[in-house]
Amino acid sequence: MYPAKFENLIAAFRRLPGVGMKTAERYAFEALNWDEETRKEVERSLQQISEIHTCRICGNLCDEDECEYCKDPNRTDHLICIVQSPKDLQALESAGVFNGKYHVLNGTINMAKGVLPSDLNIDTLIQRINENIDEVILATEPTVDGETTALYLTKLLQGKVKVTRLANGIPMGGHLDYSDARTLQRAFQGRTNAQSE
Amino acid sequence: MYPAKFENLIAAFRRLPGVGMKTAERYAFEALNWDEETRKEVERSLQQISEIHTCRICGNLCDEDECEYCKDPNRTDHLICIVQSPKDLQALESAGVFNGKYHVLNGTINMAKGVLPSDLNIDTLIQRINENIDEVILATEPTVDGETTALYLTKLLQGKVKVTRLANGIPMGGHLDYSDARTLQRAFQGRTNAQSE
Ligand SMILES: [Zn+2]
Ligand SMILES: [Zn+2]
Repeated sequence: MYPAKFENLIAAFRRLPGVGMKTAERYAFEALNWDEETRKEVERSLQQISEIHTCRICGNLCDEDECEYCKDPNRTDHLICIVQSPKDLQALESAGVFNGKYHVLNGTINMAKGVLPSDLNIDTLIQRINENIDEVILATEPTVDGETTALYLTKLLQGKVKVTRLANGIPMGGHLDYSDARTLQRAFQGRTNAQSE
Repeated sequence: MYPAKFENLIAAFRRLPGVGMKTAERYAFEALNWDEETRKEVERSLQQISEIHTCRICGNLCDEDECEYCKDPNRTDHLICIVQSPKDLQALESAGVFNGKYHVLNGTINMAKGVLPSDLNIDTLIQRINENIDEVILATEPTVDGETTALYLTKLLQGKVKVTRLANGIPMGGHLDYSDARTLQRAFQGRTNAQSE
């Protein structure tokens, strides 16, 4: 109904999650009002997407070979905290409750959706486990998929290293990146030995 | 906190209206999963923004010199319907209740925000008024700004042409592009002579 190029712009915004027709239209009208400089900046940001990688060691988002956390000599090498996503890593960092290293799975096991352990960043995790590691802390979310993944990793790592799980300070069914710093701290403090059944 | 290029991507999405940090993050993670083709398509859509113009005659969105409505010989030249935005024009078109020509103001008068009549697409409207025009229909929204603008245009056009105003079928304070077709039709049917006081 609108001119083709404007319809294209709307279609582009509709590719974003949860964005329907009305919202995409609103975004497109806003974009139309961007000045030349803003437009170029947004374009450049999109062009750089292909230059965003994952850290060779931990799987976190990274624009170099290794991420800032893996490179940081002030963080202890003896603890590895396993998270589902860079977003969850960021939530823990913002709370400032952990000073070890991370490992980012980039997903959770979900058989129904066909997400198998082999689809997650687990191979490199196994390679990281050695006598230098005192403890692996499972910080997957307390959702069905998160719990499934935690159980799988517990079985996989048991006997090789001490495995703990964040305490249920995080409300069941809730999401890690919506929890406040105190809740996250409580969860770290109350962490328990992971159960394999 | 994230790598710079990913932060840039988040910043780009935050330029969209009503998009806060959480939503921008969600969009950025989705964009990261776009395949090469999708990314190119979105980039192209943004690059084409500068090629979207306004119609020389009516001010509607257009990627040529004149818009499809101004060029359409099947629409009557004797009626002009004045709308605030291309979005509102589209709402009326979707309802299929009007078959004349349009004029798009691209805004409303708002003294507090410094939007003066001279900032709107009014000059070309005056040029369009001649003995061939039977009626000008004001379809600005029933909001404070919309009413202010309608009053201004009524005073400006009175004596030159018959000026009518869409009936209050549209709920006061509501928005034209959220109204259903029947409400819009009712508003067209019940249109009344515009009052200058
Ligand atoms: Zn890393
Ligand atoms: Zn036109």
